[in-house]
Amino acid sequence: MRIARVSYQSEVAFAVVPGSGTEDPDPEASVEVIAGHPFGEIELSGLVLPMSEVRLLAPVLPSKVIAVGRNYAAHAAEMGGEVPAEPMIFLKPSTSVIGPEAPIRLPAASSQVEHEAELAVVIGRLCSDVPRERVGEVVLGYACANDVTARDLQRTDGQWGRAKGFDTFCPLGPWIETDLEPGDLAIECTVDQEVRQSSRTSLLVHDVPHLVSWVSAVMTLLPGDVILTGTPAGVGPLAEDDVVTVTIEGIGSLTNEVIA
Amino acid sequence: MRIARVSYQSEVAFAVVPGSGTEDPDPEASVEVIAGHPFGEIELSGLVLPMSEVRLLAPVLPSKVIAVGRNYAAHAAEMGGEVPAEPMIFLKPSTSVIGPEAPIRLPAASSQVEHEAELAVVIGRLCSDVPRERVGEVVLGYACANDVTARDLQRTDGQWGRAKGFDTFCPLGPWIETDLEPGDLAIECTVDQEVRQSSRTSLLVHDVPHLVSWVSAVMTLLPGDVILTGTPAGVGPLAEDDVVTVTIEGIGSLTNEVIA
Repeated sequence: MRIARVSYQSEVAFAVVPGSGTEDPDPEASVEVIAGHPFGEIELSGLVLPMSEVRLLAPVLPSKVIAVGRNYAAHAAEMGGEVPAEPMIFLKPSTSVIGPEAPIRLPAASSQVEHEAELAVVIGRLCSDVPRERVGEVVLGYACANDVTARDLQRTDGQWGRAKGFDTFCPLGPWIETDLEPGDLAIECTVDQEVRQSSRTSLLVHDVPHLVSWVSAVMTLLPGDVILTGTPAGVGPLAEDDVVTVTIEGIGSLTNEVIA
Repeated sequence: MRIARVSYQSEVAFAVVPGSGTEDPDPEASVEVIAGHPFGEIELSGLVLPMSEVRLLAPVLPSKVIAVGRNYAAHAAEMGGEVPAEPMIFLKPSTSVIGPEAPIRLPAASSQVEHEAELAVVIGRLCSDVPRERVGEVVLGYACANDVTARDLQRTDGQWGRAKGFDTFCPLGPWIETDLEPGDLAIECTVDQEVRQSSRTSLLVHDVPHLVSWVSAVMTLLPGDVILTGTPAGVGPLAEDDVVTVTIEGIGSLTNEVIA
């Protein structure tokens, strides 16, 4: 099931979006609005809206976004670094999160902003110290993400709070796919339809169950929290007017335009 | 004015706490409960409670905690690093925040957990791109903080998301002092009443107006967001049963016990 957060008229709500795989929903199809939130038993409100009348927002408003560095060996190599023995985590601020079709804004402080396509894990339950074999119970589903990074500032700053923390630097969406096995999915990033990154989640150094278990042993996870699982090789620059799309098998495509 | 967040009976509310300077309030004195939140015009609810009947919580629930590394030259030196030309920022998760008297829990993953006394700036208004001369308009006030750090993991991990992100690793409090000039305040950390850190905020490499202005140019700040301004020299280990206190002139003292 695809769970989105949508705006319609002057309302915002979670909703079930039709379709599966990577296909966009039929614009003639309808979304079913969820009563309240999707964490726990999902109850439909009865309200049904044409897909064409809703706008997709970021599918959650996370209290925190935990991102993992150098989690594909080929990307670690292109960055000139080793694969860390344990996950290397950092946080992106909630203010960096945007939804599909919202613009990525290039900050004046950087002259080298890059895309990083990533599989995002959305947490469904308050949890900590989750054993690997019980990770499925605390995951609501999966989304596409773009861990946008000011590469020049990442190199000079040491810590990545600025380079990865600008407003609009965490596109997330287009929805959360709840019925998905994350172990071996094609992940791709295109810029103006040219393929820049193309890999599979089977190449994650630390896989999804390990990441969720490991992070939950450090910090309590709340419903809606997001773990970004790292980016494959092929990261590269974004320029004004570029259109960047992250596509993950079984989820769909997240597209954002770049503005100055 | 001192603004705290308190629990009483089964309620939680913001409240005005009596007293000034570093003195603890008279236990015989009373707190005045605030109607709603303290961001904007403060309105008292009329409810007055004896200090002895309330428990102080973390004075805000921040959407994000932005911390600054190596912002006192003597601390940068003791860490074997240089003072960064620009602020070096990282984020601590909101789940790491605890209030006065709540215990700091030593995680099994670390064998070297250390205290870092810091002046915390609490943001009062949604803001971005704040010019230095207008920073006063967006700051609600100041609190004591302890940027608790797993030093061993900080050294090995590269990024500090884990070393500084464990639950309970961000004691904050005891309240927010709104009437304070932050430029030259004594800041001290004691462990079991032995002085470990003692400095003045006049030694901050990047001062409060610069930090707030600079951070707000990277990311939008929300009411209740917290900026930790860095720790002076003298950081050192915490062990089970230690009682650690951060005292800042004009604010008060934040005390937490360490548990295994």
